[in-house]
Amino acid sequence: VIRRIGLARLVLVADLGGTFLFALEGATIACRAGLDLLGVVVIGFVAALGGGIVRDVLLGAVPPAAVKDSTYPMVTLAGSAVALAVVGAGGAVPAEVVTVLDAAGLALFAVTGVQKALVRGIGPFGVVLMGTVTAVGGGMVRDVLLAQVPVVLRADFYATAAVLGGAAILLVRRAGLSLQVASGVGGAVCFGTRMAAVAWGWHLPLVG
Amino acid sequence: VIRRIGLARLVLVADLGGTFLFALEGATIACRAGLDLLGVVVIGFVAALGGGIVRDVLLGAVPPAAVKDSTYPMVTLAGSAVALAVVGAGGAVPAEVVTVLDAAGLALFAVTGVQKALVRGIGPFGVVLMGTVTAVGGGMVRDVLLAQVPVVLRADFYATAAVLGGAAILLVRRAGLSLQVASGVGGAVCFGTRMAAVAWGWHLPLVG
Amino acid sequence: VIRRIGLARLVLVADLGGTFLFALEGATIACRAGLDLLGVVVIGFVAALGGGIVRDVLLGAVPPAAVKDSTYPMVTLAGSAVALAVVGAGGAVPAEVVTVLDAAGLALFAVTGVQKALVRGIGPFGVVLMGTVTAVGGGMVRDVLLAQVPVVLRADFYATAAVLGGAAILLVRRAGLSLQVASGVGGAVCFGTRMAAVAWGWHLPLVG
Repeated sequence: VIRRIGLARLVLVADLGGTFLFALEGATIACRAGLDLLGVVVIGFVAALGGGIVRDVLLGAVPPAAVKDSTYPMVTLAGSAVALAVVGAGGAVPAEVVTVLDAAGLALFAVTGVQKALVRGIGPFGVVLMGTVTAVGGGMVRDVLLAQVPVVLRADFYATAAVLGGAAILLVRRAGLSLQVASGVGGAVCFGTRMAAVAWGWHLPLVG
Repeated sequence: VIRRIGLARLVLVADLGGTFLFALEGATIACRAGLDLLGVVVIGFVAALGGGIVRDVLLGAVPPAAVKDSTYPMVTLAGSAVALAVVGAGGAVPAEVVTVLDAAGLALFAVTGVQKALVRGIGPFGVVLMGTVTAVGGGMVRDVLLAQVPVVLRADFYATAAVLGGAAILLVRRAGLSLQVASGVGGAVCFGTRMAAVAWGWHLPLVG
Repeated sequence: VIRRIGLARLVLVADLGGTFLFALEGATIACRAGLDLLGVVVIGFVAALGGGIVRDVLLGAVPPAAVKDSTYPMVTLAGSAVALAVVGAGGAVPAEVVTVLDAAGLALFAVTGVQKALVRGIGPFGVVLMGTVTAVGGGMVRDVLLAQVPVVLRADFYATAAVLGGAAILLVRRAGLSLQVASGVGGAVCFGTRMAAVAWGWHLPLVG
């Protein structure tokens, strides 16, 4: 029981951590786009919670947790506030810190999305899709609101890491192992391939 | 009973009025964007009903009233037709009229959104969010379809008025007053702060 | 019974055919937008299935078939793969073939959308809207993700054909004929007006 509580708490902490970081990242990008104070806060909110909201709407889990429960929005406000303070002080969050935390958020959101999809009896493609939408959907909505082609579609081995992580969960489950083990493996695959992509400059080929 | 019917009719008239005006406004903006006839009608529809549709989807109230009931779409068609007629005649709706009616629509949509969210047992942040989404969501989708950063994120004390109106409803409710009174206060706060913002040139600070 | 099975199979083949073609078309457009491999696949998926997904969300039919069932996503992958192979080989799908197949996909998706909306007891405007959203929604999301004003709003007699096809179904139903007959007439109206528009260069008037 103690271990189970420990695990649930770990997941919650990680989930809130990913939310905080994606809000911080989104708000930092918004600060460079000439928005006003409210615009920055909205972009921080959308970047952190947009993927989960789209997933919940597609799975019929409405109202989404991000709307129903005030904890998540408050965490995004904190992330946006930190971004505003850092940018206002003329500073910047170190790029290495952002990269590692961002990869962690990506892996965590991908795992969460796959878990929520698995209990709804949908096909393997849909399960991986829900993981990927959770992980990269917020960033896509953020970029659409900034009137840009989502960066995830243009370059970088990023969404691909979420796809690989989701596929890994399905494969490990099919091998008969528990969801906990599968989730751990899937998260590690997503985090690992993303970090490797950054370290060695992996990119998917550009087309056309 | 008579007073109650009067109130319900007033709310319905105001709701349809807000729908008409937001469609008129959206279609007017679309006329300047080089769209064809259908494009103008679509933008008018989206600008007027997009916020309420997003809210209904997030709250699980599907099909949204704007899809189920033909009255609302027909009102948006009327609003778009007036915009096309005015623009076609080389004219323009007087800016003062638009400003007052737009602030009224904003207040009304914010109140409606908060009311619908309150009956679903969601947290205070989500309630204010639903009011704000109802009020400004249509305009955001309109701007996204026109490939522009939503004006509400860039400048102007606009969505902020909807946030303040929604927060006022929650505060008045917590003070133990009825939803009717709270809605009246919230609507007045939204309308009043928006009109004051226009009169005195209030803006949120730009960032970055 | 044999005829019924034949009809259901025909509809399924046509539906999968429309999905394949819209994915092929979307991926071809994405190839010219400087995306990476994943971006092209995502645009192909969105272009083919986005309209149906939005319709299902609005009608409360979640998870949407396109998420639940892996057949549709796999067909979009096939469409995107063909687009990548043709573009990679420096070739292009003949424009006449694309035009005919695209008009067929448009008609089919419009009919499917109207059918799904009719069984939910929504008003005539909403029914036509659901048909049109199914037919042109995917292309609109595709263009939004490419940071462009949806082509369907700017020019061309395209969504209008879907509106006419949907309206035709309602009229034939009101005349007391079966849904099968009405669907056939509606599909023919949509396909016919679209092909006529291409043949004779019909456009809706531009505004402004």
